[in-house]
Amino acid sequence: MSLKFKPLFDKVLVERVEADDKTAGGLIIPDTAKEKPMQGKVIVVGNGNRNEKGETIPMTVKAGDTVLFGKWAGNEVKIEGKDYLVVKESDIIGIFE
Amino acid sequence: MSLKFKPLFDKVLVERVEADDKTAGGLIIPDTAKEKPMQGKVIVVGNGNRNEKGETIPMTVKAGDTVLFGKWAGNEVKIEGKDYLVVKESDIIGIFE
Amino acid sequence: MSLKFKPLFDKVLVERVEADDKTAGGLIIPDTAKEKPMQGKVIVVGNGNRNEKGETIPMTVKAGDTVLFGKWAGNEVKIEGKDYLVVKESDIIGIFE
Amino acid sequence: MSLKFKPLFDKVLVERVEADDKTAGGLIIPDTAKEKPMQGKVIVVGNGNRNEKGETIPMTVKAGDTVLFGKWAGNEVKIEGKDYLVVKESDIIGIFE
Amino acid sequence: MSLKFKPLFDKVLVERVEADDKTAGGLIIPDTAKEKPMQGKVIVVGNGNRNEKGETIPMTVKAGDTVLFGKWAGNEVKIEGKDYLVVKESDIIGIFE
Amino acid sequence: MSLKFKPLFDKVLVERVEADDKTAGGLIIPDTAKEKPMQGKVIVVGNGNRNEKGETIPMTVKAGDTVLFGKWAGNEVKIEGKDYLVVKESDIIGIFE
Amino acid sequence: MSLKFKPLFDKVLVERVEADDKTAGGLIIPDTAKEKPMQGKVIVVGNGNRNEKGETIPMTVKAGDTVLFGKWAGNEVKIEGKDYLVVKESDIIGIFE
Repeated sequence: MSLKFKPLFDKVLVERVEADDKTAGGLIIPDTAKEKPMQGKVIVVGNGNRNEKGETIPMTVKAGDTVLFGKWAGNEVKIEGKDYLVVKESDIIGIFE
Repeated sequence: MSLKFKPLFDKVLVERVEADDKTAGGLIIPDTAKEKPMQGKVIVVGNGNRNEKGETIPMTVKAGDTVLFGKWAGNEVKIEGKDYLVVKESDIIGIFE
Repeated sequence: MSLKFKPLFDKVLVERVEADDKTAGGLIIPDTAKEKPMQGKVIVVGNGNRNEKGETIPMTVKAGDTVLFGKWAGNEVKIEGKDYLVVKESDIIGIFE
Repeated sequence: MSLKFKPLFDKVLVERVEADDKTAGGLIIPDTAKEKPMQGKVIVVGNGNRNEKGETIPMTVKAGDTVLFGKWAGNEVKIEGKDYLVVKESDIIGIFE
Repeated sequence: MSLKFKPLFDKVLVERVEADDKTAGGLIIPDTAKEKPMQGKVIVVGNGNRNEKGETIPMTVKAGDTVLFGKWAGNEVKIEGKDYLVVKESDIIGIFE
Repeated sequence: MSLKFKPLFDKVLVERVEADDKTAGGLIIPDTAKEKPMQGKVIVVGNGNRNEKGETIPMTVKAGDTVLFGKWAGNEVKIEGKDYLVVKESDIIGIFE
Repeated sequence: MSLKFKPLFDKVLVERVEADDKTAGGLIIPDTAKEKPMQGKVIVVGNGNRNEKGETIPMTVKAGDTVLFGKWAGNEVKIEGKDYLVVKESDIIGIFE
């Protein structure tokens, strides 16, 4: 998929993944645990934050990564009729490998 | 269009774009989603923030970019009878390419 | 006009300008938009902030500039019987050219 | 055990250890002391935070360490049907040796 | 006048000046404008703040300067039976020349 | 005594000392002064905080020191059936020599 | 006097001095001015704060100095049956010479 949107700095565009309760490997979010982190797929990432000298700090997550992030992190956006989240890389808890 | 206004430092003058619900490519803001980010067109940008040494950090967004920013970001201004927003570059979520 | 007052560091002495609703070029502040930024003329500026090394970061705005600043920015002062505002350069949104 | 999850930056995936009240060596959390820190086993750690230059600061805790952390630190996650905590290294009080 | 008191770091000992409503040059504080900044005369200044390296950043204001400062800035002190204010240099708005 | 616990970074494991009201030298905490700092004996210290470059800043307090710290500083922990406090070095007021 | 207590970093052990209303030179604290700063004598000082590199920034106040500090600054301690205050050097307003 090719999206016409590029996040700025350390922001990451994520597509939410509905966790499958029956999958052995992967995060499971039970319905009763409303505040638990959520899983998503990284669609596109910014080029990274800039430090005091104007140098860019490269991103650690990349397009295609399956990531875990806080339920309330980020901003919801709708692009080409589809819902996404834009989260800061620092709000991402970890990557599923 | 040539405007007689230059934002200071990392500020960006933006003209709000009413999202078209029917366009395939581009951000759609449904009427029921009042808190969602908004789309705008960059009219003119500042020269960038200065670091501790007084050096200017160049801007990433430029005039002509279509950008996404938080609904409550920035200050409303009226120049030559038209409404604009002045937002900080760090409040811009991403750029539509 | 020559004023006997010199702001410290990054502070700027500004004379408020009543926006003219009928002028084509220039900021217009409608009476109903009470929270909108205000226009002013820079009378005198400080020498700039100092960084960690004690070096002075030069100012970007200068005496004579017409600037836009937040309605609640700065401190009101009265010098030689006239009202002014002292605002920090970082509270100035942009310059009319 | 090999987990398919890698925490980002200075985050640490921890498996909570139920303290054994009868063990001579090791932390004991009496039932009446609800706010006391908790013991856990480190499963996997991030690569460390990056400084202003983009350099990575190595982690001090490592997989296999038994650590003490604040009761309210971190985020609960469920991976492959099991509960874990993700805590920042700076929220870890100390290591049992 | 010679005072036996030396402010520390960037602090400034100031003697409040009652503004004269009839003076042409100088700040006027009308009775009705209770929150307006106040005028004072600098009696003695500290040696300046120290940066991260322990170096002293020299002061900009000096003894004898007539300064403008926020009404609620500083601490009131009484030395040799007389009232003064100790304000930080960064709380001084500007200098009358 | 040898404890199997090592605090992280600038944290210090302290054993509270009940102040003896009748001792001539040493801190006395009257029963009526509930908020006064408390005395303790340092059992084991971390290796120190790391700066931006990843370098470790050595600790000033060491095992065996009798220290004074704020009554509400630190976290209570129980190790091998005994109560301790973990406090940051920066929360320690001073050392009894 | 020799005290067996050494403050850490930039902390200063101070003995409060009851201001004498009749003394010509020196600070006077009228009974009605409850919030005014207080005078004290420095008994012993820490070695100074450490910067990012671990270097110690030397103290400006020294044992024997008569200092002025905010009424609510510091922690009360009792050593060898006597009341003292521990204040940070940055909370000291100035030195009487």
